[in-house]
Amino acid sequence: MSSIEGPSKQTASILERIRQPADLRTLSTAELEQLAGEIRQLITEAVSRRGGHLASNLGVVELTIALHYVFDFYKDRLLWDVGHQCYAHKILTGRKDRLLQLRQENGLSGFPSPEESPADVFSVGHAGTSIATAIGMALGAQHNKTEEKIVAFVGDASIVNGLSFEALNNLGLVKRQLLIVLNDNSMAIDTTQGSLASLLSRVRLSHTYEDIRQTTAMILNHLPVIGKPMEEALQNLKKTIRMAISPSRLFESLNIHYFGPVDGHDIGSLIQIFKGLSELDRPAILHVFTRKGKGFTPADKNPRRFHSTGPFVMNGESVSPSPQGRTFTDAFSDALLKAAQNNPRIIAITAAMSDGTGLSKFRQQFPERYYDVGIAESAAVDIAAGLAKQGLQPVVCIYSTFLQRSFDQIFQEVSLQNLPVVFCIDRAGAVGDDGPTHHGLWDIGYLRMLPNLILISPANEKEMEGALHYAFQQKQPVAIRYPRDLVPVCPPASEIGKEPFRTGRSVWVRRAESEWVIAALGPLTAEALQAAEELAQEGIEVSVINARFAKPIDPALVELFAQGKTVIVLEDHSRAGGFGEALLAEAAQRAFVEKRPDIHTAIGKAVLLAGPDDQYIPVAKRQTQMKWMGLTAENIAETIRKLASADLSVRCKEESIRSRRQ
Amino acid sequence: MSSIEGPSKQTASILERIRQPADLRTLSTAELEQLAGEIRQLITEAVSRRGGHLASNLGVVELTIALHYVFDFYKDRLLWDVGHQCYAHKILTGRKDRLLQLRQENGLSGFPSPEESPADVFSVGHAGTSIATAIGMALGAQHNKTEEKIVAFVGDASIVNGLSFEALNNLGLVKRQLLIVLNDNSMAIDTTQGSLASLLSRVRLSHTYEDIRQTTAMILNHLPVIGKPMEEALQNLKKTIRMAISPSRLFESLNIHYFGPVDGHDIGSLIQIFKGLSELDRPAILHVFTRKGKGFTPADKNPRRFHSTGPFVMNGESVSPSPQGRTFTDAFSDALLKAAQNNPRIIAITAAMSDGTGLSKFRQQFPERYYDVGIAESAAVDIAAGLAKQGLQPVVCIYSTFLQRSFDQIFQEVSLQNLPVVFCIDRAGAVGDDGPTHHGLWDIGYLRMLPNLILISPANEKEMEGALHYAFQQKQPVAIRYPRDLVPVCPPASEIGKEPFRTGRSVWVRRAESEWVIAALGPLTAEALQAAEELAQEGIEVSVINARFAKPIDPALVELFAQGKTVIVLEDHSRAGGFGEALLAEAAQRAFVEKRPDIHTAIGKAVLLAGPDDQYIPVAKRQTQMKWMGLTAENIAETIRKLASADLSVRCKEESIRSRRQ
Repeated sequence: MSSIEGPSKQTASILERIRQPADLRTLSTAELEQLAGEIRQLITEAVSRRGGHLASNLGVVELTIALHYVFDFYKDRLLWDVGHQCYAHKILTGRKDRLLQLRQENGLSGFPSPEESPADVFSVGHAGTSIATAIGMALGAQHNKTEEKIVAFVGDASIVNGLSFEALNNLGLVKRQLLIVLNDNSMAIDTTQGSLASLLSRVRLSHTYEDIRQTTAMILNHLPVIGKPMEEALQNLKKTIRMAISPSRLFESLNIHYFGPVDGHDIGSLIQIFKGLSELDRPAILHVFTRKGKGFTPADKNPRRFHSTGPFVMNGESVSPSPQGRTFTDAFSDALLKAAQNNPRIIAITAAMSDGTGLSKFRQQFPERYYDVGIAESAAVDIAAGLAKQGLQPVVCIYSTFLQRSFDQIFQEVSLQNLPVVFCIDRAGAVGDDGPTHHGLWDIGYLRMLPNLILISPANEKEMEGALHYAFQQKQPVAIRYPRDLVPVCPPASEIGKEPFRTGRSVWVRRAESEWVIAALGPLTAEALQAAEELAQEGIEVSVINARFAKPIDPALVELFAQGKTVIVLEDHSRAGGFGEALLAEAAQRAFVEKRPDIHTAIGKAVLLAGPDDQYIPVAKRQTQMKWMGLTAENIAETIRKLASADLSVRCKEESIRSRRQ
Repeated sequence: MSSIEGPSKQTASILERIRQPADLRTLSTAELEQLAGEIRQLITEAVSRRGGHLASNLGVVELTIALHYVFDFYKDRLLWDVGHQCYAHKILTGRKDRLLQLRQENGLSGFPSPEESPADVFSVGHAGTSIATAIGMALGAQHNKTEEKIVAFVGDASIVNGLSFEALNNLGLVKRQLLIVLNDNSMAIDTTQGSLASLLSRVRLSHTYEDIRQTTAMILNHLPVIGKPMEEALQNLKKTIRMAISPSRLFESLNIHYFGPVDGHDIGSLIQIFKGLSELDRPAILHVFTRKGKGFTPADKNPRRFHSTGPFVMNGESVSPSPQGRTFTDAFSDALLKAAQNNPRIIAITAAMSDGTGLSKFRQQFPERYYDVGIAESAAVDIAAGLAKQGLQPVVCIYSTFLQRSFDQIFQEVSLQNLPVVFCIDRAGAVGDDGPTHHGLWDIGYLRMLPNLILISPANEKEMEGALHYAFQQKQPVAIRYPRDLVPVCPPASEIGKEPFRTGRSVWVRRAESEWVIAALGPLTAEALQAAEELAQEGIEVSVINARFAKPIDPALVELFAQGKTVIVLEDHSRAGGFGEALLAEAAQRAFVEKRPDIHTAIGKAVLLAGPDDQYIPVAKRQTQMKWMGLTAENIAETIRKLASADLSVRCKEESIRSRRQ
């Protein structure tokens, strides 16, 4: 039994009658409210089974219903920001029957996906894109002379992103309708980041329920209607809704028409307001208050816990998270705490991902050494650079995919200055359920190009601690990447992680008299070991090296080629730009510069097992994605088995080619 | 004879007496004003000889003098934004004798450089970094409990960048002094981009000279002084300086103390104001009006022409630009115009680099199909993505180094959606005088990882036109990269560019019966041809292939390995992440997947001639930098000459290794 507000199961379902959004227009306000309850029920059930974003989706149900009531998003365009709050939208646009396959292979993505429905415009997952892409679409409509309405839906956490601001600053390019819905679900002062969030909080705290009702009434009374002069209506409206504390001063300084705040759970009023605003002939922003987690008591009380959650048990009012093992995030969290206890110069910085990156304990223990800058990855890196210039030891904790937003800052403010900033890159590699918008498959590629930067991938928990210890001792930038996964439990006899990290030094973890050597990056070392053991039982001997460093490349790895070894490189990363390519190129370079023909003969035999080239990996369990990439122990064993069996015939071929050529 | 306002050469020089900034404090205001004239003289002379940023530097002379009068920037920290306006700062901090070696090998960088002086904090060249790094330094001072003052100096063009906004939004983290000097030299409404710029313009237009004098007086009267209660002083000040149009409403919505606008050429007042503001115990922003190009009539009249200029002749009032040849930018400019005349769906987008990227003609001819979003590279790409979704054909024109700011947008909003956005990437490769902050040495690396994207480098002007024509025909994103250089003049007999572009197809431009094959990317094809001709005269035959595509890799290039060729790859790009690595990895992959031992034997013999690994290339002429990278015709010939002479001995060695191993 769940704790969802709304109708009991006995009541006739309205949701069942909704085949398309247009069906909403046949319902009364009371029925729409009942529908909201049913949608909440479905969302909670889906997330309890599959994990996902609960609180934010529960908060926007009425807003989503009202938007679909007024607009036709098969013709009009709805641009979600981040997109994690699109579940009600999916339910209303023909996907309700598949919601229980949320975030599942061949199921529904947890984010908007044009492949699923023409009502989804962009596949998104990163913050701050909706206003900029909406401007592009509105300009496109201007050029095409078409009349579709454009709506950007952005949360108070995303609008502080630099990209959002760049877009707001360019909103004046648009000379037609473009509505920005600012979904303001800020929870309380203590969790907001930055001045804009603080302004929104002050607005929220200063507005009583009665104020909001009045504002809504004023907007409805004054909204320009067709036939009535638009300028006059807008002027009258501005005169009436000015309050002491209002974002209108901010937005109107930027020449953006501001309306609000209004109640995001009042479907009837929202429909009226959207009807009015859809007729505006210029861009406008509607500020809407919503309550994150509304309707599901545990989520309402603890929206942070239910922002993004794994599956959980719906058990009356209480919620038990599904059991999980120890993750790389946990390992990092404890390793950092330990390092920070002995080193008062360590400062942690994150971009709105305190829990996700494992900084909660650090935040509690060292609040004065912790900074959360909100969804502002670029600024996070530059603030770290400033701290490093002052002799402190900043550690920047950002997911691999979001760190892409900081590429230019890592280049100029960190690598070019050669500052000892430590980057702890969680969610590096395939990420599982979140899918293509969130994979961390490019960080080695964009980081290893940058001079001065060292790039490590630890193999297990012990190595996480070792890598972090090493990183804080360097006088140059160091990045440590690790996946959204459990730390491998290495065999008791394993020595992995015992040896201290030394720059660019790999570690042999299994030595065999064999042509086959696996050079594994990070946790793939455990997979390689398992494959090697399996193969040993079949009489195929394989050596395994824990590469540790994606940059610099260990010269000992290059020497493998001189020994005529067939090197099998494993990395949870795009092959393009990855560690394997770096190793090949480094070997070719040494063969050339050091005039070592002994090196070059075996380079081409290398086998690069990595992410696919030129395609995106769809939503699935991470383990499945690893299989697709050929990176599980089983895959690796199979690849080497084939290589070994082909080896004799290949050798014969080689000889015949060689003799023909000579 | 120059047209600089200020003292004639006969007057005793004050600048000669300034050995360090502290010497400023011995001068009267009249003498400081005379000094400003002398500094202008020196700056104009330096730029006329060496090229550089003239107008912006002339505009900030008094401001720079006043800052150095009040602060001690060997202890206090001055953070320049972009940094192109730091010439007066260099003159005052012990570098005046070297200013005539501006932007020269072993001379002075045109940007701040900690290697030159402890008064320079960060090497910068990109926009929007100063406030974020200043926050980091201020937080560092908080942790260190030190008292140095922090000043961020940012222009009105940079403050609209998303990174600036992310930083402004996080300014509240700082609980101590931090002064932002907003240098507002906006020229006129028609050249400003975005709402903030438009607000600043309205402020400028609505403020008479008398208003500014009054504001200055009010600030001076009310500035909190030590001992006087700070809160009260700030409240009084706020009450007095409110005007109908003021950025104070914008900044104070964000809880940022705003002062201004004040006259940036009034040294006496500026000194008083900086003295007062240096005592503030919290972050503040001072809004200063300056005149770009002030004091040098041609630059004052045409600041856009003198924003960034090559050397010019100082000839009374008139200025003749030094003769130059036809550049890739020119070639692009005309090719785009031609394409756009036949295709009304082409829309051009730039980020404040209309002239630099060659869009001036397009802007004039198709104003309604041209968008300049200001220094907002991230938004530029997303707006393009929105336009492409609407069926238009956006072409995004951004320098390689600044496109790094758009990496995440190219990933998510373009590559993941597979939208046909065309990127025209000027300044790809070594950039010459601008140095390390501006090199375009990483674009192949970060772009070729992204699925769906095609990456081209045209070899000459004809190929630029062909590449652009090809790009607009694709249904997927295409990037075209080209250097800040003249287009190579190919021999009359050359066929380069005649053949139409076909996806992933390279073109042979010289066929020889030889082991040596050069695979050259873009304009390096011309260097390769020249080297091959030189070598032919010595009896060494070399084939040359114009690779055209950095992605996808031509399978025909992979077949070269099967033919046992020694492939010499040329690219004006970091070796790490570059085309050469991609080719090696692609060859190894095919050898593995297609079970082709004939391919892999020669892969390791490949020679990758590219940018250096793990180091930055300093300021010098581009031609010199190309020499350092080993990419001139002469270098290439020398490399192959050595390879050829070593070849016999290498072959012998190989044979002995092979026989030992068998």
